[in-house]
Amino acid sequence: MRVRKKNWTHAELESNEAIVKNPEDFKGIWKEYFKNDNPIYVEIGCGKGKFLSENAAKNPDINYIGIERQPTVLACAARKGREAGVKNTAYVNADVEILETLFAPEEIDRLFINFCDPWPKKRWHKRRLTYRDFLDKYSVLLTNNGEIHFKTDNPILFESSLNEFCLRSWRLKNISLDLHKSDFEGNITTEYEERFLALGMPIYRLEAKKTI
Amino acid sequence: MRVRKKNWTHAELESNEAIVKNPEDFKGIWKEYFKNDNPIYVEIGCGKGKFLSENAAKNPDINYIGIERQPTVLACAARKGREAGVKNTAYVNADVEILETLFAPEEIDRLFINFCDPWPKKRWHKRRLTYRDFLDKYSVLLTNNGEIHFKTDNPILFESSLNEFCLRSWRLKNISLDLHKSDFEGNITTEYEERFLALGMPIYRLEAKKTI
Repeated sequence: MRVRKKNWTHAELESNEAIVKNPEDFKGIWKEYFKNDNPIYVEIGCGKGKFLSENAAKNPDINYIGIERQPTVLACAARKGREAGVKNTAYVNADVEILETLFAPEEIDRLFINFCDPWPKKRWHKRRLTYRDFLDKYSVLLTNNGEIHFKTDNPILFESSLNEFCLRSWRLKNISLDLHKSDFEGNITTEYEERFLALGMPIYRLEAKKTI
Repeated sequence: MRVRKKNWTHAELESNEAIVKNPEDFKGIWKEYFKNDNPIYVEIGCGKGKFLSENAAKNPDINYIGIERQPTVLACAARKGREAGVKNTAYVNADVEILETLFAPEEIDRLFINFCDPWPKKRWHKRRLTYRDFLDKYSVLLTNNGEIHFKTDNPILFESSLNEFCLRSWRLKNISLDLHKSDFEGNITTEYEERFLALGMPIYRLEAKKTI
């Protein structure tokens, strides 16, 4: 996601307490960070944070952690959370590659992957966030009943994701090839999703449960 | 499939020896019918038989049985097999509802379901040939390594099929959201498929393996 650097981002990054400056310190003890025993849901690539803050407002008994590698974008997300007045969110500036340094095995109850880079060319397929090696890493970090909820506008990415999840024996459910024409209720859109919807493009979605 | 009754169909139905007049008699002993131990592949709704006869010509060591409920259409399929000179096909005039009267448990190695009626309205979903009750019936009739290979042009049917197979814990592989733009090799088209292709419509396909 490209964003122009804005004047307020530096101040937001410095002052917003929901942005975790030393996230590695909470590996294995995120419940202490939140000071409760509520489930922990993580969004990989939270972008500007609409999805995360709306989820957090709707579900105060769940803790949400947004991971975003671009600090300027993370500042937007954290500001959105602050303005929404939600207390059950944390924002982490990190790349998915270091996910294991942030979370202990079985610490995450749900992972959201929304509109990640599709890497549409075949030779790039190992970079897709639903490639088997990533799924194996997520599997370690998820609780036994843990799930991944995945959305994309890209049919190539969705097709390869279906195959990768099946290859690794994840249990799939609520598969949608056109989410906004389906019966699925309670969908919370992301900023990207709003844009694709306006263009009339179908949104693909699935839920995957790890098998133990 | 609507077809006009043609003059030759009655004669074909009477004289073509590959059309099995008493298919229930071969329940459990289809290998005796074919006089060999080769695997048995069944196409439910074989239509005019292009898919079946081309498969049979390509794979002489596999026995193919085409099931079709419309006798006039079955006559077309059987004539196509006869003209292709294939000896490893049988044609059965029957409805999918009586599949258990035609085959014993674990008698079928592979089931093909190609471009079946999509029954697109939600209230009709139990009639779709990939609805859970049908899958459970197929599961009984398939060998332990048995597979279903499924193709359709209809995204609603394909979406519901994905969910039904997953609900019943079938193992999916080679899922395509646009078969003819995919890397999948060796596809044999059906008559319907040719028509959809000419219109530029994507073809959806999956392979499903039953779990024991």
